[in-house]
Amino acid sequence: MGRWEPNARGRLEQAALALYGERGYEHVTVAEIAERAGLTERTFFRHYADKREVLFGGSNTLQEFLVGAVAEAPEATAPIDVVVAALESVGEFFEERHDHARKRQAIIDANPELQERELIKLETLATALASALRERGVSESAASLTVQAGMAVFRVAFERWAKDAGKRDLAELIRESFEELRALTAGT
Amino acid sequence: MGRWEPNARGRLEQAALALYGERGYEHVTVAEIAERAGLTERTFFRHYADKREVLFGGSNTLQEFLVGAVAEAPEATAPIDVVVAALESVGEFFEERHDHARKRQAIIDANPELQERELIKLETLATALASALRERGVSESAASLTVQAGMAVFRVAFERWAKDAGKRDLAELIRESFEELRALTAGT
Repeated sequence: MGRWEPNARGRLEQAALALYGERGYEHVTVAEIAERAGLTERTFFRHYADKREVLFGGSNTLQEFLVGAVAEAPEATAPIDVVVAALESVGEFFEERHDHARKRQAIIDANPELQERELIKLETLATALASALRERGVSESAASLTVQAGMAVFRVAFERWAKDAGKRDLAELIRESFEELRALTAGT
Repeated sequence: MGRWEPNARGRLEQAALALYGERGYEHVTVAEIAERAGLTERTFFRHYADKREVLFGGSNTLQEFLVGAVAEAPEATAPIDVVVAALESVGEFFEERHDHARKRQAIIDANPELQERELIKLETLATALASALRERGVSESAASLTVQAGMAVFRVAFERWAKDAGKRDLAELIRESFEELRALTAGT
């Protein structure tokens, strides 16, 4: 065991984001990330399985948070409101990290391998949320449709927010995208 | 160039499905697929890049069909109706292939690598459909939300249909899932 390094995860993440942004994800090695962070490769691998995972370290936290919010929503709430409220409540989670989220998204958008990884993470998140809804007594098809609709809303809102200079709250953009989806599905 | 083999693609696809179903996707080689189909490995690789692609050979056809249906929809039609009608119209495409679709889905559901591949194909399809909607003058966010909603409807309907013994039309299940989504998003 190496010695404890204060905030090693955060330092590695910052270093990786900076290097990926400067040189492109493909051209950065784990050794370079560790060096930029003032840490060793060994420390890197204690925190992340590979250089891809540095970009997805937050997804478990996000999933736990959302699943918890769905599970704890008041009993009488309609499934779609449970999901949208859970998504709105992650606003704070991201709000402090706007600059980080924007940089991260630009790196992912530039690399097909990372886009695949993100898709899989989103699908895992959707599966976990659908399961949390089913535990509230929602049918399988309703849980699936509700969560997919919620994820669509989240993706559109998140993309807008990441491109935006932080002028608008993520929660506000989620609400707005949801209203847009509702109008679109109603609009026959 | 080897000699022309009648319906080599279809024979390879049938052989692969049968073998994947019998032994599991992981335990089947390209040589075995070719042998079962009465063809050579060389013929296999003229038609498919690898043993995974045999399962996704239809996705380009499906995408072209759907993009065409979106592009040709009457001008005044609301975006969500354009997408749902396009999806309903693929019913026939699948209806003749119920047994094939069911077997294929069971193989994909049993293998994470294939599930990833399917996610990527679905995302590619969604991107193409959103682009076809934007060409009809639909805004970027509306196109994205509409297509994601449509894909959610399609996935739920397709899953139901594949598990079903072919008792109900895919088009009918798509319409039903769409009505369910509409009720869910309206239901606050």
